Amino acid sequence: MLLEGSIIEKHNEQRLRRHNLKLASLQDEFPETEQIIRQIEAFQVAIPSWALGTGGTRFGRFSGGGEPRSLEEKMEDVGLLHQLNRASGAISLHIPWDVPQDPAAIRKLAKEYGLTFDAVNSNTFQDQPHQALSYKFGSLQHVDKAVRKQAIDHNIAVIKHGVELGSKAITVWLSDGSCFPGQLNFRGAFERTLESLQEIYQALPADWKVFIEYKAFEPNFYSMTVGDWGQSLLYASKLGPKAYTLVDLGHHLPNANIEQIVALLLMEGKLAGFHFNDSKYGDDDLTVGSINPYQLFLIFNELVEGMNARNMNHAKDLGWMIDASHNVKDPLEDLMQSVEAILIAYAQALLIDTAALKQAQAANDVVRCQELLQAAYRTDLRPLVAEARFRKGGALEPLELFRSEALRNTLIKKRGEKTVATGL
Amino acid sequence: MLLEGSIIEKHNEQRLRRHNLKLASLQDEFPETEQIIRQIEAFQVAIPSWALGTGGTRFGRFSGGGEPRSLEEKMEDVGLLHQLNRASGAISLHIPWDVPQDPAAIRKLAKEYGLTFDAVNSNTFQDQPHQALSYKFGSLQHVDKAVRKQAIDHNIAVIKHGVELGSKAITVWLSDGSCFPGQLNFRGAFERTLESLQEIYQALPADWKVFIEYKAFEPNFYSMTVGDWGQSLLYASKLGPKAYTLVDLGHHLPNANIEQIVALLLMEGKLAGFHFNDSKYGDDDLTVGSINPYQLFLIFNELVEGMNARNMNHAKDLGWMIDASHNVKDPLEDLMQSVEAILIAYAQALLIDTAALKQAQAANDVVRCQELLQAAYRTDLRPLVAEARFRKGGALEPLELFRSEALRNTLIKKRGEKTVATGL
Amino acid sequence: MLLEGSIIEKHNEQRLRRHNLKLASLQDEFPETEQIIRQIEAFQVAIPSWALGTGGTRFGRFSGGGEPRSLEEKMEDVGLLHQLNRASGAISLHIPWDVPQDPAAIRKLAKEYGLTFDAVNSNTFQDQPHQALSYKFGSLQHVDKAVRKQAIDHNIAVIKHGVELGSKAITVWLSDGSCFPGQLNFRGAFERTLESLQEIYQALPADWKVFIEYKAFEPNFYSMTVGDWGQSLLYASKLGPKAYTLVDLGHHLPNANIEQIVALLLMEGKLAGFHFNDSKYGDDDLTVGSINPYQLFLIFNELVEGMNARNMNHAKDLGWMIDASHNVKDPLEDLMQSVEAILIAYAQALLIDTAALKQAQAANDVVRCQELLQAAYRTDLRPLVAEARFRKGGALEPLELFRSEALRNTLIKKRGEKTVATGL
Amino acid sequence: MLLEGSIIEKHNEQRLRRHNLKLASLQDEFPETEQIIRQIEAFQVAIPSWALGTGGTRFGRFSGGGEPRSLEEKMEDVGLLHQLNRASGAISLHIPWDVPQDPAAIRKLAKEYGLTFDAVNSNTFQDQPHQALSYKFGSLQHVDKAVRKQAIDHNIAVIKHGVELGSKAITVWLSDGSCFPGQLNFRGAFERTLESLQEIYQALPADWKVFIEYKAFEPNFYSMTVGDWGQSLLYASKLGPKAYTLVDLGHHLPNANIEQIVALLLMEGKLAGFHFNDSKYGDDDLTVGSINPYQLFLIFNELVEGMNARNMNHAKDLGWMIDASHNVKDPLEDLMQSVEAILIAYAQALLIDTAALKQAQAANDVVRCQELLQAAYRTDLRPLVAEARFRKGGALEPLELFRSEALRNTLIKKRGEKTVATGL
Repeated sequence: MLLEGSIIEKHNEQRLRRHNLKLASLQDEFPETEQIIRQIEAFQVAIPSWALGTGGTRFGRFSGGGEPRSLEEKMEDVGLLHQLNRASGAISLHIPWDVPQDPAAIRKLAKEYGLTFDAVNSNTFQDQPHQALSYKFGSLQHVDKAVRKQAIDHNIAVIKHGVELGSKAITVWLSDGSCFPGQLNFRGAFERTLESLQEIYQALPADWKVFIEYKAFEPNFYSMTVGDWGQSLLYASKLGPKAYTLVDLGHHLPNANIEQIVALLLMEGKLAGFHFNDSKYGDDDLTVGSINPYQLFLIFNELVEGMNARNMNHAKDLGWMIDASHNVKDPLEDLMQSVEAILIAYAQALLIDTAALKQAQAANDVVRCQELLQAAYRTDLRPLVAEARFRKGGALEPLELFRSEALRNTLIKKRGEKTVATGL
Repeated sequence: MLLEGSIIEKHNEQRLRRHNLKLASLQDEFPETEQIIRQIEAFQVAIPSWALGTGGTRFGRFSGGGEPRSLEEKMEDVGLLHQLNRASGAISLHIPWDVPQDPAAIRKLAKEYGLTFDAVNSNTFQDQPHQALSYKFGSLQHVDKAVRKQAIDHNIAVIKHGVELGSKAITVWLSDGSCFPGQLNFRGAFERTLESLQEIYQALPADWKVFIEYKAFEPNFYSMTVGDWGQSLLYASKLGPKAYTLVDLGHHLPNANIEQIVALLLMEGKLAGFHFNDSKYGDDDLTVGSINPYQLFLIFNELVEGMNARNMNHAKDLGWMIDASHNVKDPLEDLMQSVEAILIAYAQALLIDTAALKQAQAANDVVRCQELLQAAYRTDLRPLVAEARFRKGGALEPLELFRSEALRNTLIKKRGEKTVATGL
Repeated sequence: MLLEGSIIEKHNEQRLRRHNLKLASLQDEFPETEQIIRQIEAFQVAIPSWALGTGGTRFGRFSGGGEPRSLEEKMEDVGLLHQLNRASGAISLHIPWDVPQDPAAIRKLAKEYGLTFDAVNSNTFQDQPHQALSYKFGSLQHVDKAVRKQAIDHNIAVIKHGVELGSKAITVWLSDGSCFPGQLNFRGAFERTLESLQEIYQALPADWKVFIEYKAFEPNFYSMTVGDWGQSLLYASKLGPKAYTLVDLGHHLPNANIEQIVALLLMEGKLAGFHFNDSKYGDDDLTVGSINPYQLFLIFNELVEGMNARNMNHAKDLGWMIDASHNVKDPLEDLMQSVEAILIAYAQALLIDTAALKQAQAANDVVRCQELLQAAYRTDLRPLVAEARFRKGGALEPLELFRSEALRNTLIKKRGEKTVATGL
Repeated sequence: MLLEGSIIEKHNEQRLRRHNLKLASLQDEFPETEQIIRQIEAFQVAIPSWALGTGGTRFGRFSGGGEPRSLEEKMEDVGLLHQLNRASGAISLHIPWDVPQDPAAIRKLAKEYGLTFDAVNSNTFQDQPHQALSYKFGSLQHVDKAVRKQAIDHNIAVIKHGVELGSKAITVWLSDGSCFPGQLNFRGAFERTLESLQEIYQALPADWKVFIEYKAFEPNFYSMTVGDWGQSLLYASKLGPKAYTLVDLGHHLPNANIEQIVALLLMEGKLAGFHFNDSKYGDDDLTVGSINPYQLFLIFNELVEGMNARNMNHAKDLGWMIDASHNVKDPLEDLMQSVEAILIAYAQALLIDTAALKQAQAANDVVRCQELLQAAYRTDLRPLVAEARFRKGGALEPLELFRSEALRNTLIKKRGEKTVATGL
């Protein structure tokens, strides 16, 4: 472990009195705080293996220092994160960026860090060196059967890696699509993609799921072959009960009502889970909650309501993952901010007076509906999130501790100033 | 008839030489012109009864003169339009704006004008005087069963009106949705709406269809209960084989790829047809082809390709209708421009060298795919559209004739300067 | 007065203990609370005379009951609002919807309610009955000099009304623009509009300002002649020192960074003030803070920073007004929610640790910059807003009091169920 | 020269009869064809040095073969293009991707190919190896004076390179901005950027211009410090008469009316020129005219109208450049399609009956305005563009000749299959 437990303890001791005061004030006001704290404690957000390095754009990439140079170091980063916030106890691997060469050793390491393996991710949007056929014109949609087969085989190989580590799902995000009108026969592309997905679906172990992620645009700029939730749901429905739709918050057209999409996918029993991030223009991959935290809250409102309606387990029945880029922030700090924003939004959603809301909705009392949502949203629930962390041995203020202990410097000393992690 | 046939003949005579020259040049270049002309001849675009008057916005409405004051006068307008362009031989009624009090007389009148009755349209987005319950908070989605029943009954009444006139479909556009987060339980709204639609579906005659129109926003500004093609398709699939998804070009989020939606709905056998218009920002309801005529062409490319793939009859198997507002144009002139733009786009789509396109797509020859589309699009096919019109007895240049004969003045003299047609 | 002062007192008494507890907790944590409370006390948001009635869309309008039938009753509504929240002490008149027939009596009434008169608003986007010339094709931009003159004269008449009441500014919002490519010569439209504005500018009293409001689209759907902040600033710069740019939050293209616009206009000394509302798609005119409260906070962050940099008086040097529609809410309740959202955002902006923020910006410490903003935003400052209201004699919970006293019923009894206020 | 002149001649001979037939038909119909052909002949579109290689996205780059490995080979490519289409007689260099090591030799080479040097482009959006300070947090806006100085010096060095080659302008595109709220003080960023630009302005030779290019978003995803035309115009106005605003078609928010911006910048005498491309979602950098050719035509309509109003020389007084990426097309073929689309749009704009349009605008005859624009747009003017090319010695069908002569193969044989040109 990079950080001795005693340091966390000391950090907490210094803040405990003030923390308890704030906590008590909330406990005083809201009888449900204890229940909320327990639910936050159970909630874990997976960290993608590609999010530990500095991200970039097509215009350039400005690396930071101390980036992880291997899967082992990426796990070390997630382990550190989890030690600090106790809410990042899972890692999501991206193949081929992070092939586990020695699965047993990797599993052992994960156990040491208290990590599990979330959904594995395939990559058919880039050509790898020595790859036989190119994905320039798509992968699962490709007009050439041989390219499709190569992409299918890759996905099956990714599933095998996942099986070795204990993952239970594969996320398929396709950049397949077209850049120009006429380039693609839309129906043909859909049918070929469906056929390819069916072959992958056949290769799923009995207890596995496949998550179909959609995206409105980029890197294809005219059409995407899995372009919106409607298309993803069509694929998932045709594939069968193990196929689900994955929502990435940044993958929509301007002004889309994402929370409504979430509610409908839950209604259909087809929501896979989330790739969390925030954005203003497109797939900006900014820190969760940095642009529109109220929208995040509204999404959690639908999640809580919809999962409860289906008696689902908040912590286990959907996949929660961050998917962000960190062009101008330290990746670990960015992830700490993202996890915090997620937990705050979740806590606020849990605080909503749902009985009163149902009543107000039944009476078309729109003013009161808004009052009820905003009453929860405007309440400062940071103490509950901190308390959940504290109870599990994490730091009351993870970011502050990360900085006061100069942990990035520790990483730089260990790994060097000029490292570049695999990823975008 | 407002216009004597001999006037059209005279108009055509004066233009025939020049027209034939241009036509011959196209016939010379393209062997398929004759086939295209015949397909244009068969193509009819329905005119909605509410589009004969000047439209408005919430900021105001600036009426023109001579607007039709009754259903009979609206039919007179469509009759005139059809006499001029021979491509507007159907009318689509909106209830309660245009209730046919004496169906037999209306049918007779339609026959005189050479018109048929397209899909009928219900209206549960406005309260009518003396209406028992309000649609302020929705109609088919309403939390109050009594309001839903009122809306269902209205739809069934509309179907009955349609049956009396020979319509074969009802278009249901709902403004149902919410203006504020929390106002609506999305799942509940969907389920109630589905239930209501099922009751309407039960009331459909054996040879009828129901068209479910979706819209992204307005007049509800937070969520729409039939908000996108994915939602509409969900309803249509759950309803059964007589339910279809209707596409209005202005009902999408910014940058949506409408042509891909069209292709996928055709693939699923669930495309109902179109409400044609054009727009830059939202549901602007501008003249068809006035903002982005290339998009219109691309949509027709998908329509032709997809209908041919299913052996569908272009002219009969889908519903074609204009749905535009005419805030600053003479409604009849606007409609003439819209129909012309539709026919040109259709003709251009028919001109595409589909065999070569398939080949280029199979070879990922993106440059050639674009060349093939644009070769058709850049060709000036106005002579083919004019020829189709001419052969059916219409005017070579309908708009010019409408003006040279001062037909609007005729209407004003007949109906008055200050008339206001029912509609938006 | 509609409400006896003793009722407010009683309402407050019942809530005071709990309120004081929360207030004390904030005072304990933040030394600046007293200063913030005083600044909130000084802050007043003007209510537009057209916002007291139910709004509508082009698809319909669903009136509520008890709407004000006259200017006097509108002032009664604002008076009530101000009595409850002590932050709505100004009214903004819209001519010709609310012509003050007897200015002296109106001024007297205003004094009784503790109201002042904010910027007056002209209307050249609608035709009034008996108006000589139509604004169908624009007003200040019109190709016909006579129409321009009529619009100029109207604006000058509005100024005169304002002078009689003590207003110090006129807001000019133009719907001028075009619906179709080619309709307008953009340069000509700009030049004619500028010329017209110059004539209005000449008519401004010495201590008056003119606010040029821009809007991206609607009701014109191709171009707007004052379409964005760049155009408005061009007009304002060419007009002179008394001309300023007015920002309406809903008048932008999707994804616009409004807070940056605010900062730049302040930098140029050309920001007039605000029309507050919220929106998801366009000019949705929803309750302030109901869709994206964080954006509202970011705007106030720029306002506070920029006004402080110019030593401006927050309360007096800019115009603050709500401009929303209330399609599904009681207008007075909607306005209470809007004012509350504004004051909370203002308070949060005042809480930002600006010294630390400057330091973090100077060090490119992006993570810390975000932490500093969100630390302020996540703090629950409702007690400060309530305290400011309380100190000025308002109600701790205005909305609750409005409901518990059934004040809408009082208004309905007085004015009737079927009243419709002038406005959109 | 890669291509012998006799091959072009032979190519033309085979097509001449058919070409002349079509041309004659246009000449017959429109008396102005000769004038239009001459104007097309004079029109040249500059090719950026970075557009000769395959482009990419942050998700990957799929190289083609035979890409130029040096500035000399890039010039060879542009030379070939120009030989084929006779409309690409200028090249725009990007420093440091294409530093002319031996300016005299480069000038000589340019002369051989018949090329001139258009605006030079600086790059402060990427870090170069061995660069002292990083642009991670901006360049001309940077909080650190030393970074600003480095960026200023780079721009001045770029000007010097340009002087050696005969360029007369520098284009400054800045990626400066911020990714998160709070990161930047907008006013400070503007003021520092202005100051930096002033230093660059001071270094401009007497007959030089500086073009300030704006962009709404990407690679910064919260704010851009030169984010829209309004900001660019502010900089340009404060800088002085040698500073102008450059419009890149892909650098706007969704739905922006670019043609209006063009008209206003021309009105202000501040339009620098264009970076042509097309896009559906953002800065997609697609082939010009591939998504919305009507918009391109509308822009040229404003250009022709506005330049004529100022007695400007269409060919010389503004900068015309393509700025596109070629992710899935052969770069040279893509450029040929782009130039063709530009010339067609230009020709169509020249065909507009401007006298009639003015008259219709003056009469608010919106229908006729649209008829006049679309009459020009719907006319097939490809023969005029081909004729202009033919008269200057180019190929009637450049793309066809490029393919029939297998010129890409020639380049691959010469340069190799795996070359990667510098650029994005």
